[in-house]
Amino acid sequence: MSDFSIGVDLGGTNLRIAAISTDGQLLEKITLGVKVTLGPDHCINEMCEAIRRLTEKYRRGGSFLGAGIGIPGIIDMEAGMLRKSANLPGWSDYPVRAEIEQRLGARVFLDNDANVAALGEKWLGAARGVDNMAMVTLGTGIGGGIVLNGKIWHGMNGMSGEFGHNMIEPDGVPCGCGSHGCAERYASATAVVRMAQEAIASGAAPELAKAASADAEFGAKSIYNLAIQGDDQAQKIFRRFGRALGLMLGGVVNTLNLEMFVIGGGVSSAWDAFAPTMFEELRERSLVYAATAPDDPLARDTGREEGAAAQVVSRTRKKTIITRALLGSDAGLYGAARIPAA
Amino acid sequence: MSDFSIGVDLGGTNLRIAAISTDGQLLEKITLGVKVTLGPDHCINEMCEAIRRLTEKYRRGGSFLGAGIGIPGIIDMEAGMLRKSANLPGWSDYPVRAEIEQRLGARVFLDNDANVAALGEKWLGAARGVDNMAMVTLGTGIGGGIVLNGKIWHGMNGMSGEFGHNMIEPDGVPCGCGSHGCAERYASATAVVRMAQEAIASGAAPELAKAASADAEFGAKSIYNLAIQGDDQAQKIFRRFGRALGLMLGGVVNTLNLEMFVIGGGVSSAWDAFAPTMFEELRERSLVYAATAPDDPLARDTGREEGAAAQVVSRTRKKTIITRALLGSDAGLYGAARIPAA
Repeated sequence: MSDFSIGVDLGGTNLRIAAISTDGQLLEKITLGVKVTLGPDHCINEMCEAIRRLTEKYRRGGSFLGAGIGIPGIIDMEAGMLRKSANLPGWSDYPVRAEIEQRLGARVFLDNDANVAALGEKWLGAARGVDNMAMVTLGTGIGGGIVLNGKIWHGMNGMSGEFGHNMIEPDGVPCGCGSHGCAERYASATAVVRMAQEAIASGAAPELAKAASADAEFGAKSIYNLAIQGDDQAQKIFRRFGRALGLMLGGVVNTLNLEMFVIGGGVSSAWDAFAPTMFEELRERSLVYAATAPDDPLARDTGREEGAAAQVVSRTRKKTIITRALLGSDAGLYGAARIPAA
Repeated sequence: MSDFSIGVDLGGTNLRIAAISTDGQLLEKITLGVKVTLGPDHCINEMCEAIRRLTEKYRRGGSFLGAGIGIPGIIDMEAGMLRKSANLPGWSDYPVRAEIEQRLGARVFLDNDANVAALGEKWLGAARGVDNMAMVTLGTGIGGGIVLNGKIWHGMNGMSGEFGHNMIEPDGVPCGCGSHGCAERYASATAVVRMAQEAIASGAAPELAKAASADAEFGAKSIYNLAIQGDDQAQKIFRRFGRALGLMLGGVVNTLNLEMFVIGGGVSSAWDAFAPTMFEELRERSLVYAATAPDDPLARDTGREEGAAAQVVSRTRKKTIITRALLGSDAGLYGAARIPAA
């Protein structure tokens, strides 16, 4: 057996905690129903109890190296606190890292959830062995994480990778950030639903209207299902999604000229519906992508083996590889556990 | 006296060569009238003769560490050749680095002209002491260079920093790169002249029309002169310029969260005409800039002392500083000389 660390995913509805060995094996994963939105006190107690349970169990096989915690929001790395988190009210003035370190008697690292997901995909997923990459997480909004020289690039204030708010339509849909036409207003689950509602309101989308009234959980997934069944309006929404994502990625590719961009998050499962227009737009919009695009970018989108093949291409012929994530919602757990182990 | 290196600026109409000491003192600068567009053979002979003259003279005081050469175009760093350069036909199949190294018997480094300008401003200019910065060069087009952890960030193919081709207007002006609405179509010398021509053609810009017909060298500078004399149409052009630049910078700030962005190049002398709308747009368009903007960004734009003050702010209160370059056209010479000396 080998040394291990703990990765924690503090986002979403559940609290997930995993013990992961330094060679990347998942030893055990615990999912707690605790509501992180209820505030830090109770949540941190439950989390630390679960971590202790795991560390006591796996300490027999190797040393416990510490815990990494992925959090949706902007992290003050120096203070070990949340600076701002829309989903975690009551957490921003709480000394999160210090409290957990004290209870565990171990090193604790906080980081943004999109950043740890990027590190997870770099360590064990689609970008395994790729030292310079970015990850785009398509969910309610767009999350972003950048890995340079094998490490998370935090920027000056831990705010790097906010390319979901890069403008792709100057007079476009207003965004909560104060701007208009941000990429995430066109390429996220929220955006897919909005575009469907607009299509329904226009009267031009009978299938979407039917699904919306029949399905209590009508959302991006239902709209994707209609798209794969051939509904033109649903397909149109994902084509627009792909164009928006391509426009956004074009700017990031031009700026950073990275080896790989990994597309993850729940909505990335609609890949076949949005990827063709994404690549089309990228090739037209980004001179760096046009100069470095693989001959058939869509051929490289499935399975670990092809992901690995893509990396070889990337390192030898130096192509810009844009591909799907491989670790699903576990990317963040792996990446968080990687921080104390690196 | 101290060790020294040679910086070469291979762009533009002249060939400039400087001997610079490791502590940043310009020892001597030579400007040759040789036309780099006539091809590499003659040019490299003249360059090497000038370098030899300098190295023989200053070798008495310290060791010669090598030469750095800034070149407009995409450099193949591994091969030491130009991959693509619009301004230097005939250079792309020539073993530039090998030829110069052989003649000088010293280490030679080729790099993109915008990259070495960024390194120069980081070493001795507006970003002195700032380890993570980018430079935007406003000239015929927009050049870009990124410095991370004190070193030029080249990206995978030496194509990083091409943010002049980031889209700021989806259906905008066609660009030579194959896209539409690239930032440099709105925020460059070429763009200023185009916007003036459009204003003249519309019949709404009598002062611009008068200047265009009277001035044989009518260009961005003449239009700026009209703007500072109060001509509304000329001012409008620079306001639009500033908005475009702000839009472009907004995306780069969101993506990288750097400490400083230095604006240089010939058209940066029109700073007072475009900076107000640039900052306005940035604040609205970039959530990262909005969260990290200094109270009065325009207060930090003149002189070396204020540049230095801006850096202190940047390092302690962690603001995003956007400021004017300080080294003018010498930035590239200093930056090129820095590479062998670093």
